[in-house]
Amino acid sequence: MPLSFPIENALLPACITQNLVKAASVLVTKKHLTKGSTRAIICNSGNANACTGENGLQVAFSMAELAAAKLGIAASDVLVGSTGVIGVPLPLSAVEKGLDSLIASLAADASGHDAALEAIMTTDTKRKEISIEIELGGKSVRLGAMAKGAGMIHPNMATMLSFITSDAAIERELLEHALRVAVKKSFNRVSVDGDTSTNDMVLVLANGAAGNKIIASMDQDYAEFETALSHICVELAKDIARDGEGATHLVACTVTGASSEEVAEKLAKSVISSSLVKAACFGADANWGRILCAMGYAGVPFDPEQVSVRFESRAGSIEVCRQGASLPFSEEDAKKILSESEISILIQIGEAVAPLHPHATKVKEPISVTAWGCDLTYEYVRINGDYRS
Amino acid sequence: MPLSFPIENALLPACITQNLVKAASVLVTKKHLTKGSTRAIICNSGNANACTGENGLQVAFSMAELAAAKLGIAASDVLVGSTGVIGVPLPLSAVEKGLDSLIASLAADASGHDAALEAIMTTDTKRKEISIEIELGGKSVRLGAMAKGAGMIHPNMATMLSFITSDAAIERELLEHALRVAVKKSFNRVSVDGDTSTNDMVLVLANGAAGNKIIASMDQDYAEFETALSHICVELAKDIARDGEGATHLVACTVTGASSEEVAEKLAKSVISSSLVKAACFGADANWGRILCAMGYAGVPFDPEQVSVRFESRAGSIEVCRQGASLPFSEEDAKKILSESEISILIQIGEAVAPLHPHATKVKEPISVTAWGCDLTYEYVRINGDYRS
Repeated sequence: MPLSFPIENALLPACITQNLVKAASVLVTKKHLTKGSTRAIICNSGNANACTGENGLQVAFSMAELAAAKLGIAASDVLVGSTGVIGVPLPLSAVEKGLDSLIASLAADASGHDAALEAIMTTDTKRKEISIEIELGGKSVRLGAMAKGAGMIHPNMATMLSFITSDAAIERELLEHALRVAVKKSFNRVSVDGDTSTNDMVLVLANGAAGNKIIASMDQDYAEFETALSHICVELAKDIARDGEGATHLVACTVTGASSEEVAEKLAKSVISSSLVKAACFGADANWGRILCAMGYAGVPFDPEQVSVRFESRAGSIEVCRQGASLPFSEEDAKKILSESEISILIQIGEAVAPLHPHATKVKEPISVTAWGCDLTYEYVRINGDYRS
Repeated sequence: MPLSFPIENALLPACITQNLVKAASVLVTKKHLTKGSTRAIICNSGNANACTGENGLQVAFSMAELAAAKLGIAASDVLVGSTGVIGVPLPLSAVEKGLDSLIASLAADASGHDAALEAIMTTDTKRKEISIEIELGGKSVRLGAMAKGAGMIHPNMATMLSFITSDAAIERELLEHALRVAVKKSFNRVSVDGDTSTNDMVLVLANGAAGNKIIASMDQDYAEFETALSHICVELAKDIARDGEGATHLVACTVTGASSEEVAEKLAKSVISSSLVKAACFGADANWGRILCAMGYAGVPFDPEQVSVRFESRAGSIEVCRQGASLPFSEEDAKKILSESEISILIQIGEAVAPLHPHATKVKEPISVTAWGCDLTYEYVRINGDYRS
């Protein structure tokens, strides 16, 4: 089922997959993005339209053309998204057939909400959406977003499918900057299975209907908008990890005290991407040695003898490793903590920061980065052992 | 159970894990390797003696000292290997207790074969050993080797545990070179789960007892020795992938026609490391789109529109993708091919090499690299969801 967001005069910054093998939809979207204005997105699920050759590219262009004709806009104003199986020809007739009822549903529901949100799901088991309202210069500004993604999730500079809309007035360059910042700390810090998709895209549209004073510099309004956008992206990214194929746990790994944000990010992502750490999370097994092992092959410098590891969830908090070596801990307590559906792995690199004395001057906050993943389960194997058929 | 190879005057080049977090055994072995001569290796399984702090290091040194005392050699002539759970203190008493019966078994079986081969297994289900005999200048030269490894397998410049012995006469520098060459195209091209271990080591001992003219330059004898050593390492590496935790298929991915060996290796390793490709192999699903996807995020250049993919096994051979797009193929035949226990993914990058005309002059052989992995199964999840307990 295709979806569409007919937003007049919207700006459309985007982050697109860095996979060298790009879906036809990604190629068409990249091309149309250079045209400046964008007024609609058409998207199908069930077929990635990737590795489908010249014919696949033709189908993707035709999707934009057909939607544009129905909406009375230029084809280059339409972007194209696809998600599903790679390497299977996408029949244009399937898109054509759905188009009339799609346009009709848009008229009934201007946000395209119902048509879109469930239509983009493939192996997703939950709808992923969020909206937020902030005030900029006395004007109410809204941001709304949806996303899909459960497998082939290990974004690199881009991610799965996520479409974000806002009525904020903001210059294109600043909207682009805000999106880059938001994606870096959200979608780019999620992994379900280490596989970077051929079809990833995050698109944000802003049409200025809120009537706020246009954001034209890195001022307070910009900062608030960027914070809101980041919040939305982080929540959707967590939704994606939580709904990872077969997942029974959302796993957040926070690395604090690293020498740089890049180092912290590489360590946190290495931990949540490790098959062995993921399988241990499935078994609620406090196997912290695998965490240190995954940090050790992340390819960034740190002192293994200054690492502390703590597991945390609603059921409590337990330190299992200090200065790179084991601490005695209750296996029973650890099991209880790791049996919760949302668990945190808290890693401290280097000397632990001492609690501040109440009269001390505030010290610089240590670098802290969180990445999100999920456990590796029988169900992941079942889903992906037989995905196409 | 420890193991020991008392080989007089042996040379001992080694490849050691590149994980930043190194087991105590690895640290002791690195230190003793600088001393020049090596006459024994003591190794335990069930406990990795990694992330065990100062005390763990003391235990590893004591293992060498105890074995040395029993054998009447210097402690620095003994190397130490460990494999098992990370982060649990290793009780020296367990090693002490086994030492007498170990030494006795060595006297009964000079190769240490029985004591060692099964003792080093952890989650391995099969013994991994190989021996080979070559002739150098009229002298018979033997190489024998054993290895262990089933999980936490994604070697980087080194691997799991593998101990190789030979009676060849060869200079240390050339033995080192031969080992580097052999490991590069064998153990370093295997992945079970993408996790580089803290305890990997490959050690080769050669004592010159064969009486061949000492190999002192890169001559024909050297070439034959290197080929034999590579053969041994490749066979053991394949054994490790075949016996990967929970594996039901050995998966070999061969990339031909890349612009360099490095590019071909990165592509082949990316394919065999992909969780989605591995799960598809488990399901005997000819999901070649995931193969192109894994190539696309390998981080090396190639033209996706010039890629061909073929699946092959004892049951036949089937081309499923040509010039980056799908070919019509029989799903039934593909299923039959992929249901075999050993399957090959053959990838051709760039223009397919035309069959040689019988009268044509021989063209340069295209670059071809093979990497080995296994499928991702329910059993892998079961084993690793509950490894420590």
